[in-house]
Amino acid sequence: MTVTPLVIAGLGPGDEALITPEVTAALTEATDVIGYIPYVARIPAREGLTLHATDNRVELERATHALELAAAGRRVVVVSSGDPGVFAMASAVFEAVEQSPRFAHVEIRVLPGITAMLAAAARIGAPLGHDFCTINLSDNLKPWDIVERRLRLAAQAGFAMAFYNPRSASRPHQLARALDILREECGPDRLIIFARAVTTPEERISVVTLAEARAEMADMRTVVLVGNEATRRVGRYVYTPRRAG
Amino acid sequence: MTVTPLVIAGLGPGDEALITPEVTAALTEATDVIGYIPYVARIPAREGLTLHATDNRVELERATHALELAAAGRRVVVVSSGDPGVFAMASAVFEAVEQSPRFAHVEIRVLPGITAMLAAAARIGAPLGHDFCTINLSDNLKPWDIVERRLRLAAQAGFAMAFYNPRSASRPHQLARALDILREECGPDRLIIFARAVTTPEERISVVTLAEARAEMADMRTVVLVGNEATRRVGRYVYTPRRAG
Repeated sequence: MTVTPLVIAGLGPGDEALITPEVTAALTEATDVIGYIPYVARIPAREGLTLHATDNRVELERATHALELAAAGRRVVVVSSGDPGVFAMASAVFEAVEQSPRFAHVEIRVLPGITAMLAAAARIGAPLGHDFCTINLSDNLKPWDIVERRLRLAAQAGFAMAFYNPRSASRPHQLARALDILREECGPDRLIIFARAVTTPEERISVVTLAEARAEMADMRTVVLVGNEATRRVGRYVYTPRRAG
Repeated sequence: MTVTPLVIAGLGPGDEALITPEVTAALTEATDVIGYIPYVARIPAREGLTLHATDNRVELERATHALELAAAGRRVVVVSSGDPGVFAMASAVFEAVEQSPRFAHVEIRVLPGITAMLAAAARIGAPLGHDFCTINLSDNLKPWDIVERRLRLAAQAGFAMAFYNPRSASRPHQLARALDILREECGPDRLIIFARAVTTPEERISVVTLAEARAEMADMRTVVLVGNEATRRVGRYVYTPRRAG
């Protein structure tokens, strides 16, 4: 039996004009699209296409389901928002492959997408124009003390920073703690950007200093960008110069 | 006089199927495309379009030229490979705006693209599937000792890493030094990926351990990815689990 590859595709931050032609082509050929409910909702229904929308908390089950369908010869696309390799479904699929030798023969193709931090950076200027780091602030999958240590070392290294999953209903206090750490390490004047639902009709971007920043400025749809010590405003834009130390 | 926005667009890593429709639309409407020679070479000639290809070393001049043309009413697109906000032209344009108050009225639109590290990660699996950092290894614009310090702190923080501009003819020894530092901080078994010209016909990707890594494995067209302590192989793929510390 010929086994079709399992495709893991990034839908970008929301605007259809940011979906790559590579991803569009894969979706056109798919028999099955699998993903978290709001991402699958972005895929138009058509004859011959089965949409499998599941809750966010079951990533490994979703990955296993996708592998089973691909192994059975279906043309499966697992969809993530942004880029599937950045805090999204790609790692979950490889975890499922590792756990189940029966999937060792399934070919996997990861199709990159525009990830939220780069879409947000583009909308406000170029705040990630120098060395930067990318941190998932959720402690669902790692101890919070590792997050705190990582934040301090990143600040000491002089990185600009991007935070995914900065806040959720089940973790209301951690972003406030992260902001306290950043104020200790970077001082009150450092610029911070709260970018919500970028490139969608609900987009809302605010630029404040760390002194002004409050955890309530973020929700589940927000990516947070923190400048380095050279990051500054020019007109309505925020950018980090190339010569920053 | 109405001033048209200056567009700064990312062409992605090389494959045309990775150029977003947003960027394609901007190029279709452009009167002038400006950029480094090999990136402008990717834009098809057509009537009404002037291509301005310049050398890599004159980014600020190129940015100023683009702003002058936009201020004169031309529809200008500055092109970068990858994403314009990641070690590319966006920061240079904002530097030029900051230096020249006569450009304060020019509206600037940054259009994101698929950046090399995420294209490379997708081709090999999901090596950047957990917290990571992105470092420009060139010391053209910063002292080398800052690079060394940043590498050590990034390793201590447990980040996976992506390196842009790892090696050039004028800087042949720095990547060797960086690899020495990584071996000291991360040990010999850490996985490292040399990904050259990803998504082009010249693509070449090799996965080795730090013990096996040599600076000659990289050139100007290579992006280098370093795993964290949990990064591993599964079949022909390399991935970093979501639960990595």
